[in-house]
Amino acid sequence: MNRFNESHGSRSPLHTLLSPTGIAIVGASADPTKRGYKALLGLIKGGYEGAIYPINPKAEQILDIPAWPSLADMPGTPELALLCTPAASVPALIAECGRQGIKGAVVLASGFGETGAAGAALEEAMMAAAEAHGVRIIGPNTSGLFNLHQRINLLDLANVRAGDIGIVSQSGNMLLALALEAQHNGQVGFSSYIGPGNQSDIGFNDYLRYLGEDPHTRVATLYVEGFRDGRRFLDVARQVTAHKPVVVYKSGATEQGQKAASSHTGALAGSYQMTVDLLRQVGVSVVQYSDEILPVAEGLGQLQQAPGKRVAVISDGGGQATIAADRLAEAGLSLATLAPSTRHALEEVLLPQAALDNPVDVAGSSDACPSLLARCVEIVMADPGVDSVFLVGMFGGYSLRFSESLADDELQGAKQLLALAQGSEKPLVVYSLYAPIKPPALRHLHESGLPVYASIEHAVRVLAALGERGEYLTQVRRLETPWQPTAKGAALLAGARAEGRDLFEFEAKALLAEHGIAVPPQWWVSQADELTSVIEQAGQQPLAMKVVSRDILHKSDAGGVKLHLSGAEALREAFQAIQHNAHAYDPRARFEGVLVSPMAQPGVEVIIGMFRDPVFGPVVMFGLGGIFVEVLEDVAFRALPLSERDAYAMVEQIKAQKVLDGVRGAAGVDKPALVALLMQVSRLVEAYPEIQELDLNPVLAYPQGHPTGYAIVDARIIVERDQ
Amino acid sequence: MNRFNESHGSRSPLHTLLSPTGIAIVGASADPTKRGYKALLGLIKGGYEGAIYPINPKAEQILDIPAWPSLADMPGTPELALLCTPAASVPALIAECGRQGIKGAVVLASGFGETGAAGAALEEAMMAAAEAHGVRIIGPNTSGLFNLHQRINLLDLANVRAGDIGIVSQSGNMLLALALEAQHNGQVGFSSYIGPGNQSDIGFNDYLRYLGEDPHTRVATLYVEGFRDGRRFLDVARQVTAHKPVVVYKSGATEQGQKAASSHTGALAGSYQMTVDLLRQVGVSVVQYSDEILPVAEGLGQLQQAPGKRVAVISDGGGQATIAADRLAEAGLSLATLAPSTRHALEEVLLPQAALDNPVDVAGSSDACPSLLARCVEIVMADPGVDSVFLVGMFGGYSLRFSESLADDELQGAKQLLALAQGSEKPLVVYSLYAPIKPPALRHLHESGLPVYASIEHAVRVLAALGERGEYLTQVRRLETPWQPTAKGAALLAGARAEGRDLFEFEAKALLAEHGIAVPPQWWVSQADELTSVIEQAGQQPLAMKVVSRDILHKSDAGGVKLHLSGAEALREAFQAIQHNAHAYDPRARFEGVLVSPMAQPGVEVIIGMFRDPVFGPVVMFGLGGIFVEVLEDVAFRALPLSERDAYAMVEQIKAQKVLDGVRGAAGVDKPALVALLMQVSRLVEAYPEIQELDLNPVLAYPQGHPTGYAIVDARIIVERDQ
Repeated sequence: MNRFNESHGSRSPLHTLLSPTGIAIVGASADPTKRGYKALLGLIKGGYEGAIYPINPKAEQILDIPAWPSLADMPGTPELALLCTPAASVPALIAECGRQGIKGAVVLASGFGETGAAGAALEEAMMAAAEAHGVRIIGPNTSGLFNLHQRINLLDLANVRAGDIGIVSQSGNMLLALALEAQHNGQVGFSSYIGPGNQSDIGFNDYLRYLGEDPHTRVATLYVEGFRDGRRFLDVARQVTAHKPVVVYKSGATEQGQKAASSHTGALAGSYQMTVDLLRQVGVSVVQYSDEILPVAEGLGQLQQAPGKRVAVISDGGGQATIAADRLAEAGLSLATLAPSTRHALEEVLLPQAALDNPVDVAGSSDACPSLLARCVEIVMADPGVDSVFLVGMFGGYSLRFSESLADDELQGAKQLLALAQGSEKPLVVYSLYAPIKPPALRHLHESGLPVYASIEHAVRVLAALGERGEYLTQVRRLETPWQPTAKGAALLAGARAEGRDLFEFEAKALLAEHGIAVPPQWWVSQADELTSVIEQAGQQPLAMKVVSRDILHKSDAGGVKLHLSGAEALREAFQAIQHNAHAYDPRARFEGVLVSPMAQPGVEVIIGMFRDPVFGPVVMFGLGGIFVEVLEDVAFRALPLSERDAYAMVEQIKAQKVLDGVRGAAGVDKPALVALLMQVSRLVEAYPEIQELDLNPVLAYPQGHPTGYAIVDARIIVERDQ
Repeated sequence: MNRFNESHGSRSPLHTLLSPTGIAIVGASADPTKRGYKALLGLIKGGYEGAIYPINPKAEQILDIPAWPSLADMPGTPELALLCTPAASVPALIAECGRQGIKGAVVLASGFGETGAAGAALEEAMMAAAEAHGVRIIGPNTSGLFNLHQRINLLDLANVRAGDIGIVSQSGNMLLALALEAQHNGQVGFSSYIGPGNQSDIGFNDYLRYLGEDPHTRVATLYVEGFRDGRRFLDVARQVTAHKPVVVYKSGATEQGQKAASSHTGALAGSYQMTVDLLRQVGVSVVQYSDEILPVAEGLGQLQQAPGKRVAVISDGGGQATIAADRLAEAGLSLATLAPSTRHALEEVLLPQAALDNPVDVAGSSDACPSLLARCVEIVMADPGVDSVFLVGMFGGYSLRFSESLADDELQGAKQLLALAQGSEKPLVVYSLYAPIKPPALRHLHESGLPVYASIEHAVRVLAALGERGEYLTQVRRLETPWQPTAKGAALLAGARAEGRDLFEFEAKALLAEHGIAVPPQWWVSQADELTSVIEQAGQQPLAMKVVSRDILHKSDAGGVKLHLSGAEALREAFQAIQHNAHAYDPRARFEGVLVSPMAQPGVEVIIGMFRDPVFGPVVMFGLGGIFVEVLEDVAFRALPLSERDAYAMVEQIKAQKVLDGVRGAAGVDKPALVALLMQVSRLVEAYPEIQELDLNPVLAYPQGHPTGYAIVDARIIVERDQ
C-alpha cells in the first residue's frame, strides 16, 4: 500500500493517470443511464484528444467510437482504465489491466471494505492483483474523476468551467453540489476532481501532493470523511500550504456524524477536534460548514492573504456593520483601530453624521456617489494598522435603488475597487446585499477576479481564512530537533519492557529528569525502616506518599495515596496503611514500596499528554486539568514534531484562558515555562519511540518568578510491549 | 411614552397608520434622488388607492399629482404623514400634523438621540409635540414602512411581492437584503415592513402586536439592535407565538457588535445571552446568523411545526447524509430510531447496498427512479418515532444528471412529496444540491408552497426551528402564582429600608425561611458570651462563623469568615479574631456581631440569582458556581413569572451538564429540588417588589435522598432604596 511513498520527493505519478494519452472504458454502454455511457459521452463532449477505447463484448461501436470485446483486443495502450463493472469482476480486470500495460484504474464499483467482511476480502484480492501487476487504483467506491484542462470528464458533468480549484471529495454529491454552486456563481471553475472512495491504494496525501504540483490548481479543496495515513497527509499538507491554499471540510464533527461517515466509506473518523487542530497546525484552512467550502475556496484563490487579523469595515448601513462586527469577533478577527490621520481623511470626504469609528458607517454620504465607498476603502487600506478591508452593504445596487443616473459612477467605483484590490498587499472582501441579482458593477468586479459575497457570514469566513493563512505564512515555524536517547533513559525503558510493564512513577520522573525536565525530589522506599533517611533529607516540609505496584493502576482507588504527612510517625503509619490497603484492594498485587515526595504548592492544574494516534502518529495534548478536561474537554492537540509557535498556540487555544491568566485575583501562570515543558516533552518522546503514551497529570502551573514554573505531580509512561 | 399601553387588550392602533385612507408626504420632491420623490413614486407605482398629498411650498404638482404648500393647505385629512425633512423641522411639523387631524407620522430624519445631547433634546421636543397633539410617531431615524397588501410602499422598493412575512427591522439595509434574497428566491413575499428607528414613541412590542393581529402576516420577522421596553415585548411575544411564529435576529452577540449597535440606534444592547434566553422562553425562534433569517422565516411560514425533535434523513449520497447528521446533532436534534417495520418497508423498495439506519442512504436505488425518494419519505413519515423528515441530496436534478427520460418520474415524485407534506402533521424539509439552478421538479415544489433549500446548514436551522416551536406549543406552561408578602417578611424589608441598608445575611435567610425555603440553622451572636447557648444548641458539628456588619460587603476580604470551628474555645477565639479583623479592615465599620451556622456538607456549587433588568424587568439566573460562572459564564436566564417548565429548562441548559449529572463517580444532584427552589425564589421576589436583587451563592446541591436537596450557604438580598 501507499507505494507512492517510494517516489516521495519526485513528481507525483498521478500526473500520468490524470493526463493519460488514452483511456479504456470497461463496461462502456449505449444505455444513457449507465456510467459506461456517461463517461464516454463526457470524454467526447469535453473534446478529449487522446485515444478512447470502449470495452464491451457485445458492441462494435458505441457513440460512433469503435468498441473492443476486451482489454486484450485494444489496438493501443492507454495509461488509464475506467472500470464501470460490478465489484466481483474487479480483481481479474485489474490483473488484465496490468498485462496490457495500463498504469492505473478508476474503480467505480462499491461493495468492498465499506460493506463488511466479504467486501473486505474482495478489496484485498483487488489490491493483491494491483500490486502483482503494477496497477495503481483510484477508488474503489469512487464517483470518478475529471481533469478539465485535459478535457477529461469521466463524470460527464455539465456546465462546469475549467478553472483553478482542485477538488478531492469522498462524496460524489458534494462534488455535484460544488459544481452547481459554481455554475450559479458564474465565475468559479475547477481544475481536477478526484473521488478517493475507499483509498485502498491511493489516499488523500497522494491526491493533495498532485494538486500541490498541478500548475492549473490554485486552491486544493478536500471533503474528507477519514484519512488512512494522516501522518503523511500532514507532511504533504505542510509542503503544499507553503505555496498554495488548502481548504478542508472534515465530516464527523459529532458522534452522530462519525457513525454516519463510517457506514459510508469505512474510514476511521478519529477525534474531530484533534483532526482539526492538526490540520490547522500545518496551515490548512478548515471550514466548519459545508456551505462555506466554495466561498472560502474562491476567496483564497482570488484574494491576497492578509498580513494579520485587524479588519477595517466600510459600510453604508449601521445594521449590517453591526452584524459584521459580531461575526468578525466570533471568528477571532478584530476591528482595526484607525489612526487619527485615517479618521481625519475619512472625515474630509464623509457627511457629519458618518460614524468614523471602525466599523465606518458612511451614513448616507455615498447615496449620490457610490464611488465614494472606493475612496473610503483606499483611505483605510493605507492605514498601517489595517490588515484587510471589508466592504459591507449595498454597493452595486445604488443605481437600482436610488437612480439610474448613478450607474456610471458606480461602475467607476467598481473599477477603483478593483485597482485597489490588485494594487495592495491587503485583501479587499466585498459583501453586497445586491449580490443575489448580480447588477452590472458587481458583475464587473466578479468577472475581473474580485469575488462578491451574498452572505456576511460567508464573507467573514473568507476574511478569517485570509488572516489565518497570512499569519501562518509569516510565522517562523522552526521545528524542534528530537533529543538523542541516553544510556540511562534507554535502560529504564528496556528494563520495564523486559518485565512487560510500564514505567513506575519514579522511573517516569527519573526519565524526565534525565533530560533536564524539572521534577520534584522523590524517594522510593520499599521498606518502612528506609523512611528515616527520607525524613533526614526531606526536612520539615509536608510529604505525599503513593503506592508503587505494577499491578495497581488507580492508586487512589486502592487507598494507595496519603497526603500532608509530617513527622516520622505519620510517615510510618502511612506506609503501613498503604501496604495494608494495597493488599486488601488486590491480594495478588505486588507491593513494591511507596514513593515519597514533598507536597506541591497549590497551582493551576494542567495536563500534558502524548499518545500515538493510529492515523496521525505521535500527538501531544495540552489542557486544563481536573473538571475542565473531564467535563469541558478543553484541550489542544498538535502532531509531532512541534515548533515553539505550535506550543504557544496550544496554550493560547485553551478556551478557559481566564484560568491561565489568573482568576479571583490570582496571578497568571508562567506560560513560557509551560511552552518550554511542552517542547521538552515532545523532544523526549521523539527520542524514545518505545514510549507508547505519556501522561503528566496533574502538572501544577505557577506564576512567573517560580524557579521552575510548574510542578509535575504525577507522571505515567506506557511502554510499548514486545509482540 | 408607550401610550399604546393604554389600549392594551384592544386592537392595535397601528392598523390605522398602516392602512390609512390618505397619506401626506412632507418634503415631496421632483428630484429622483430624494426620499420625498421615491415615496411618492412608490405609492403611485404600487397602485395606492387612498388620497396622496405631496407637501412642497414651491411645487404645484409633482409626478402629476397636485402638491400643497403646507399641511394646512391640504383639502382632506390623511391619517398618516411621511416627514422627509431634516431633524430640526420635525417638532413643529408634528404639532402641525396634530392640528390637521393626522394620527401618525413616519419620521425619516436621523440626528436625534443616537447622535448625542443636542439630538436627544430635539427628540424630547418632538415627543412633547407628539403627546401634546396626539400624534403617534414611527421612527425617527427610520427607513420608513410598507404595507404591500394595501399597496403602500413608502420605500419604492422594486420587485417585492405581497406575501405573508412581516418585517420589523432596525436596519434599512437588512430589509433591502431580505427583499433581494426574496426576489432571488422567487416565492417569498412580504406583508408589512416597519423600521422602528429610535423607537421614541412606538417600539418593537407595539409593532409585534400589530403583526400578530395582521391577517396578512403568517410570520413576524424582527431584526433587533435593542429593545426599549423588553418586559412588554416578552408579554406580547408570548401572546403572538401562541398562534404565529416570530423570528428574531438579535445583534450584539459580542462586545464588538454591541458597541457598533449602540452607535447606530442608541439602544441599550443588554446581555446577548440573557436576551436570547428570554426570547426563547416566550417561544420566539431566535436565529444566530443573518443569512438564516429568510430561510427560517420561509420555513416557519410554509411548513408544519414538528411534534418533536427526532428527524429521519432520506438521502441519495452518504457524504451529504453525514453532513446532515453532524448539523442535526449540533442543533440539538436527534436522528430518529426507525422501527423494525419501517426498516423492513425500506428494505423492500431499496437495493441491497442501501443503508437502512437513519440517515437512510438509498445508495443508487433511485438513480433510475427518483420518485422512489418520495416513497421512502412516505415510509419514514408513517413511523411514530419520527417527528420530521429531511430529504437530502440531488432530488430535482436526476433528469439533468442521469437522463432526460427521468423528467416525468421526477415531476411525479415532486407531486407525491407535496401530497405527503400537505397530508401529514410532520414537516418535510427539502435540501437539494440542484436548488441553485431551479430545475422543473424543484420549481414545482417551491411554487406549490414547499420550500427547497440550497444549503444543508440552513435546512437544518429550519428543522430546528420547527422542532423547537412544536415543543414549545405542546408544553403546558402554567406560570407560578406569586406569593403574598407576610407581616414578618414585610417588616424585615421595611426595617432594612428604613436604615438605608440591605438585609443582613441572617435576615435574608430568615425571609427565605418565612416562605418555607430550607435554610441551615443559624445563630446571630452580637456578644461573645452568647456563644454558650449556641454551643448547647449546635452540639458537636463543625461550625462556620461570619461577620455581621452593614458596612462590610466582602466578608472574606475583611478576615470576617472562620470555618470548621469545633468547641467553645475555638468559637470564642474566632469571635474575637473576626471582631478584631473587622476593625482593622475598616475602623468605621459597625460590628454587629457574627452569624454562626453548621458547616455545610460538600456538594455541587450552584448559584441562583434575581435582578431587575432595566429593559426586561425581573430576571432569574441559574448557574454552576465558582470557576464555572466566573470563567465560563455557564448560566441560564429566564424572566419572571416562571413556569415549572422554564425552571427545568434553566437547569437543563447548563453546558457543563456533566457536573450536575455527577462526575468522577459522584452521584448526580437532585434536579427537581433545584427546580423547586427556583420556583420558590421566583415567587418570593414577586411577593416583595422592594427586593432589588437576590443572590444565593453558593448553594450546595446534593444527590437525591438528601432531606432538602441543597444547602443555601450564603444569601444576599439588596433592598430598594428610598429616593
